[in-house]
Amino acid sequence: MSELTARLREGLPADAVLTDPDVTASYARDMADFCPAGTPAAVVLPRSVEEVQHVMRTATALRVPVVPQGARTGLSGAANAADGCVVLSLLRMDRILAINPADRTAVVEPGVVNAVLTRAVNEHGLHYPPDPSSWEQCTIGGNIGTAAGGLCCVKYGVTAEYVLGLDVVLADGRLMSTGRSTAKGVAGYDMTRLFVGSEGSLGVVVRAVLALRPRPPRQLALAAEFPSAAAAGDAVCRVMESGHVPSLMELMDRTTLRAVNDLTKMGLPESTEALLLVAFDTHDPGADLAAVGELCEAAGASQVVPAETEAESELLLQARRSVHYALEALPGTTMIDDVCVPRSRLADMLEGTAAVSEKYGLTIGVCAHAGDGNTHPTVCFDPDDEDETRRAHEAFDAIMALGLELGGTITGEHGVGVLKKEWLARELGPVGLEMQRGIKQLLDPLGLLNPGKLF
Amino acid sequence: MSELTARLREGLPADAVLTDPDVTASYARDMADFCPAGTPAAVVLPRSVEEVQHVMRTATALRVPVVPQGARTGLSGAANAADGCVVLSLLRMDRILAINPADRTAVVEPGVVNAVLTRAVNEHGLHYPPDPSSWEQCTIGGNIGTAAGGLCCVKYGVTAEYVLGLDVVLADGRLMSTGRSTAKGVAGYDMTRLFVGSEGSLGVVVRAVLALRPRPPRQLALAAEFPSAAAAGDAVCRVMESGHVPSLMELMDRTTLRAVNDLTKMGLPESTEALLLVAFDTHDPGADLAAVGELCEAAGASQVVPAETEAESELLLQARRSVHYALEALPGTTMIDDVCVPRSRLADMLEGTAAVSEKYGLTIGVCAHAGDGNTHPTVCFDPDDEDETRRAHEAFDAIMALGLELGGTITGEHGVGVLKKEWLARELGPVGLEMQRGIKQLLDPLGLLNPGKLF
Repeated sequence: MSELTARLREGLPADAVLTDPDVTASYARDMADFCPAGTPAAVVLPRSVEEVQHVMRTATALRVPVVPQGARTGLSGAANAADGCVVLSLLRMDRILAINPADRTAVVEPGVVNAVLTRAVNEHGLHYPPDPSSWEQCTIGGNIGTAAGGLCCVKYGVTAEYVLGLDVVLADGRLMSTGRSTAKGVAGYDMTRLFVGSEGSLGVVVRAVLALRPRPPRQLALAAEFPSAAAAGDAVCRVMESGHVPSLMELMDRTTLRAVNDLTKMGLPESTEALLLVAFDTHDPGADLAAVGELCEAAGASQVVPAETEAESELLLQARRSVHYALEALPGTTMIDDVCVPRSRLADMLEGTAAVSEKYGLTIGVCAHAGDGNTHPTVCFDPDDEDETRRAHEAFDAIMALGLELGGTITGEHGVGVLKKEWLARELGPVGLEMQRGIKQLLDPLGLLNPGKLF
Repeated sequence: MSELTARLREGLPADAVLTDPDVTASYARDMADFCPAGTPAAVVLPRSVEEVQHVMRTATALRVPVVPQGARTGLSGAANAADGCVVLSLLRMDRILAINPADRTAVVEPGVVNAVLTRAVNEHGLHYPPDPSSWEQCTIGGNIGTAAGGLCCVKYGVTAEYVLGLDVVLADGRLMSTGRSTAKGVAGYDMTRLFVGSEGSLGVVVRAVLALRPRPPRQLALAAEFPSAAAAGDAVCRVMESGHVPSLMELMDRTTLRAVNDLTKMGLPESTEALLLVAFDTHDPGADLAAVGELCEAAGASQVVPAETEAESELLLQARRSVHYALEALPGTTMIDDVCVPRSRLADMLEGTAAVSEKYGLTIGVCAHAGDGNTHPTVCFDPDDEDETRRAHEAFDAIMALGLELGGTITGEHGVGVLKKEWLARELGPVGLEMQRGIKQLLDPLGLLNPGKLF
């Protein structure tokens, strides 16, 4: 037994330390298949804060890197193992510790699955909005690590908006509490938000106080077909300029629609260039949808089809949620971009992405959280074809360059991981990068937490 | 002319550097009269980013402390001068640089007055929610410095929720951009939120990208009278547990009501122990108010009076906004607490505050952003009476101790300044304090920015 394994077992039950290479290899990577991943020395599955502290103290003593993991549904390689690291899986810390309807808060461990929390708070008439497409698998800890978004963001914002306070185990094993359990609080610097989206590079979240909302009415959706992605982008702007507050505003292009039909046999319209889904969870969603339908037609929609029932609306949302899996199921492999631009530049972003597709001779399926200006151009390529792979990487980069040019960001919700490190430096600029590295140095002076990510 | 003045004038117009002691003395303090304040060596009033950079470069070269200031309406002494410092007033950087209805964003300089921005965006059908009571005077830069709240927070959150990106001049004069201009973005650590609420101790905000909302319908309010503050706190919990989303939920106790009547002759009921104001800006506020009225009665309200008109509602809000001035106008002087507790502990907080008042034999007027659990107990005392002053400080501290005991924070929205330094350390604990000091050291290694505040 290695010294590392022996020391880990001093503070963890035997079944919480895995070292069989066949088993540990299965923890090596998230869903970004093409990102490099190392070979872990061990996988630990703690059940308590004290056990996490023991892992970090051991790692610090032996100078071993630690990679915190949730459900590994990430799309940037942020949870990928480093060679010789300890993979710190939080999956067994999956207790919901409290739900308080008067305070509209929940207290959870990091391994709670998003959908499990959502259903649990629903029973109290409450709602936890953040809903990444992987919500049936992904964990709250992982959501916090990436500041995950989802379909609800256009009205309800991202995970960051729902994290009030955290308990974090630092690199050296000390426990720090950040933030608060209250609706408001400004005592000192906002350390909570520093950890949200830090991709496991600053500390290990072991407990979170989350804000909840009252459960909204069920939403009703429409689908509008457009002759061009730019026309759909124009419709998005018209809707927002008119003061509407949709609960969902999603776009799928023709490539995406075909892929979804192939996977799900849903019979979405394939002759249209762009399908826009808009939903409302207001007191009279039918009236809101009627007004939005008119705005879509004014922007050039060839057809506007409101869902008749909640079930029909839910079917449209399922189509959108299946996009990632549908594009993954296409022949070859995919690289998914995550560029977010100001909403007013969405049409430019969509047209520019089509130009990139043409220039590099590659299929790029686009879906977008259109209401947020957050596009997911998915570059499809044959990984066995060297030239196509090179072109795919160039196209992937060209899309990020375009996003920055349009005043946007290289990542709206998926994070940087190992996939966009070079681009993070470009977006932050030298002063910003220096300060972010300073933060990392402050909180993880030995560089043990999730090394090789972000910077 | 001192070397400091000479160097400052090399990069600033003559009218932007004030050194007349009678003039500079008027910039020495904010509205927390009883907090210590030093004597500034100079006051500078830059109009551009470059001028701010010149000030910080000069200060760094000469090792002179700099105290950034907005309208000095703060309540914790956070903008108070240090001896020999340069007061850096951002009041002349007051341009609204852009308002974009499709993106629902505004780009502003720090000296823009809150109410000026509110009215400007209203003309585009948009709304900037944060509304501190001082909104007609206070600046966006000051609001960012304190992460200011207001009456709207129960539905719309605090300033922090509306800051998407910042341009910040660092202590050494370098310019750093943080965040984004987009609805979403997770590229690297959230440095934006680190500056929000940092009370001018980490950098000088010179430009902000703010999120806006569509303008909500006008709100309609009710006033409910309760036989005890605890009963009002119970009503607050019942309303929130029932899934309502009020746009305002404010409480005034009898001392406060009398003080407001003395100042404004408004004729608020003085025989009641606690008056709860609740408002809705929903599609049918009358129906929501009727439901809430019933909940108030179930919680023991002796009388529930819904406003008949928007004008009547606005009058109730004006009463609440005048509280600070009304309590200030009482004989003697006041110290205003800002404790925020979980909403479910509001009744305990209010009863505990009454016990503190009795124990120390002092009048303590309480108003509260009740929906947020954010109470403002205001300790009234005669500053010329040594014993009363000592008791006032003890009562002020006892209230913060009670807040922490109930799982709350020592400051919901006013910040730490010089007033609550010792208490910040208590709330954060040693590990939290060490990390916050590390952040300060990273961004301001010479300790020149607003020294003596927070820690």
